Amino acid sequence: MGINEFARQVKDASITLAAMSAEQKNKALQEIAVALVERQGEIIEANQVDLARSEKENLAEPLLKRLKFDADKIADVVEGINSLIGLGDPVGKTLAATELDEDLELYRVTCPIGVIGVIFESRPDALVQISTLCLKSGNGVLLKGGSEAMETNRILADVIIRATEKAGAPANWIKLMETRAQVSEMLKLDEYIDLIIPRGSNEFVRYIMDNSRIPVMGHADGICHCYVDEEFDSGMAVKIVVDSKTQYVAVCNAVETLLVHAGAAESYLPVLKEVLDAKQVQMVGCPRTQQIIPVSAASEEDWKAEYLDYQLAVRVVDSLDQAIDHINCYGSGHTDSIITTNRDKAAKFVSLVDSGNVFWNCSTRFSDGFRYGLGAEVGISTNKVHARGPVGLDGLVIYKYILLGNGQTVAEYAGREKTFKHGKMDKNYSM
Amino acid sequence: MGINEFARQVKDASITLAAMSAEQKNKALQEIAVALVERQGEIIEANQVDLARSEKENLAEPLLKRLKFDADKIADVVEGINSLIGLGDPVGKTLAATELDEDLELYRVTCPIGVIGVIFESRPDALVQISTLCLKSGNGVLLKGGSEAMETNRILADVIIRATEKAGAPANWIKLMETRAQVSEMLKLDEYIDLIIPRGSNEFVRYIMDNSRIPVMGHADGICHCYVDEEFDSGMAVKIVVDSKTQYVAVCNAVETLLVHAGAAESYLPVLKEVLDAKQVQMVGCPRTQQIIPVSAASEEDWKAEYLDYQLAVRVVDSLDQAIDHINCYGSGHTDSIITTNRDKAAKFVSLVDSGNVFWNCSTRFSDGFRYGLGAEVGISTNKVHARGPVGLDGLVIYKYILLGNGQTVAEYAGREKTFKHGKMDKNYSM
Repeated sequence: MGINEFARQVKDASITLAAMSAEQKNKALQEIAVALVERQGEIIEANQVDLARSEKENLAEPLLKRLKFDADKIADVVEGINSLIGLGDPVGKTLAATELDEDLELYRVTCPIGVIGVIFESRPDALVQISTLCLKSGNGVLLKGGSEAMETNRILADVIIRATEKAGAPANWIKLMETRAQVSEMLKLDEYIDLIIPRGSNEFVRYIMDNSRIPVMGHADGICHCYVDEEFDSGMAVKIVVDSKTQYVAVCNAVETLLVHAGAAESYLPVLKEVLDAKQVQMVGCPRTQQIIPVSAASEEDWKAEYLDYQLAVRVVDSLDQAIDHINCYGSGHTDSIITTNRDKAAKFVSLVDSGNVFWNCSTRFSDGFRYGLGAEVGISTNKVHARGPVGLDGLVIYKYILLGNGQTVAEYAGREKTFKHGKMDKNYSM
Repeated sequence: MGINEFARQVKDASITLAAMSAEQKNKALQEIAVALVERQGEIIEANQVDLARSEKENLAEPLLKRLKFDADKIADVVEGINSLIGLGDPVGKTLAATELDEDLELYRVTCPIGVIGVIFESRPDALVQISTLCLKSGNGVLLKGGSEAMETNRILADVIIRATEKAGAPANWIKLMETRAQVSEMLKLDEYIDLIIPRGSNEFVRYIMDNSRIPVMGHADGICHCYVDEEFDSGMAVKIVVDSKTQYVAVCNAVETLLVHAGAAESYLPVLKEVLDAKQVQMVGCPRTQQIIPVSAASEEDWKAEYLDYQLAVRVVDSLDQAIDHINCYGSGHTDSIITTNRDKAAKFVSLVDSGNVFWNCSTRFSDGFRYGLGAEVGISTNKVHARGPVGLDGLVIYKYILLGNGQTVAEYAGREKTFKHGKMDKNYSM
């Protein structure tokens, strides 16, 4: 079956899915959790086929580790589903209620976006996480996982499809894609697909953004900054920068560029370098940095680099304004943190840095759906519209305006026969 | 100066604009209102140049009427600014506050989107409306109006620029474009422009959507439906359909297709036809419609047509489900209304019709920012993400996550030394 037909079926199913009650959706999530445990043997067996093939193909060790889907991972995923069941329904929330006139009530009510296309990396747990988030938010989904995880993904999709059908979800609400050609095809289907969420490398995300008319939510770069102000606690500044850089280097919220106020640089940089040296972090710096610590010269390219590695670019600045300008110029709008004891400077930084996540005196590594308490996340967005930062259930819904009348026409109001009241009502939509 | 440099300047200014207080922005709006009245003579003079040239170029009468900007129109626009001043600041609202842990507080706070590119039709009042909405929401703006209104737009932009600079707004927060070449250039500037709002014809909006990587908000089509159920009040159904069709035919929320339940068609259609005949509305219909009233045959193209004229396509359906399917298949997700006395059927329609505005027992013409009580609107969106339906101030903001800490690192939480509290706080962000 062509991907066009797949997408049409998901679109059809999404209409019914959108009207499912919170209870029905939670029941379906429950069935998935039960089925994952029941079919654990099958799942692990399929995963071992993937692992064996990937080892033979010399897949790198960290990727093999991500690919592995054993009893512990299944238990984690089931725990995730159970906490998702505990979250409130993001659909059907009344965002605003206005009495336009007597017997003419306007409600703005959340509803699913429709059909979401998600392309994700090798971890099979991502398939379960993403599809359960889509189910809870009432969205149909087309999924494409890493080809290394093909067998595991196939059985996980089968588990989800059967379990949710059993719970009364419409057939076809979820479809698994298996080839890159299908993904290319999907990018053209703006008639059926409302949003694409690509997860993966910078180049991959850019490719998706450049090749589809469908809105794309996600991030290409994670060029995060720490700025150490001249009014600072040195111990805290070392601790935060070391955590931001080294707690996990391969992730989008790790810091890539450190900005240091000239008034802090001489005392701070040597101390920081000692700790980072011990962690094998390679530093490059601007000429003023090089006058203080022995590091290679940073080039213009370093300010634009997302190293995702044990590397850090350092620049000495003369003011908070210069730091803010650097971040707004070279940053990717992901996560930036100021370290200062001065509340006013922190307030200014938070106000003027144009990023989805702006922090005061804490590690950039906190920008994450789980740490934010959103439950799971579908990804982190550097978009300027719809949803920004870690995106959980709230980012998977939109709203519709519902107007309940009693025969009213616009002519009556245009002719000033009647006038609008526009009174706020403290009332939820219900029919 | 090239549009690239223009856009860069607006982007720079937008950072400062974003941090303006509600009082400063209201002061700037007040200055605009004052200057519009003070420079009324100049504005009307410029408008007469536009009118004279356009008359010579044989611009159609309705367009000339829209182009005219006299003392009454200026008074309307000033009234609009005064009501905008009265609305709350959409920026700086705390949407959520979570205590991640002791001294580690997360806030989700609204902020401007950044820089918005708006391309609008001939009415000069649109320039004032759009730029004041952008100002109030803290967004920089690049504007392109209709070339017929060139002289009027130029002086209005000058009035706004001078008045807001006087009130302390950053220079360059607003720029007027004057050529189509500049618009084409702007579509490529995703580095500086965060959102494009095109207002105009279907073809024009589609052209913009197809030729930019920048997110576009708006609507190409307004294919709106009324569905008359078999359980209905005939008088109400006539009144609503006549208003939806004829109150103003040239607008996106006018009805284009009427769906009638087979159980209602025989009694209803002849009565409706008599009233619509008197209003010179041309009807086309499906074969079953043609068995009841003498109308031309509707083709497949009619179900996809946005007539924007005294024309109506009619189809007889066998069920509510069939009506919903027709709307979800042929509609444009704009505005659709059910006319029925049965509340359950209305609830089903509202739930399953995938449109931004879904109505029960009232005219489709109500979908409008003013009628909804949003104050003014920048346009109506049929997007499935960010903002849907009439878009007012709320649709011009996004949010950032602000995390206030005290030296916390992720390593402490990863090592289970500390655990997250994730407690909801009933508290607004302030620094």
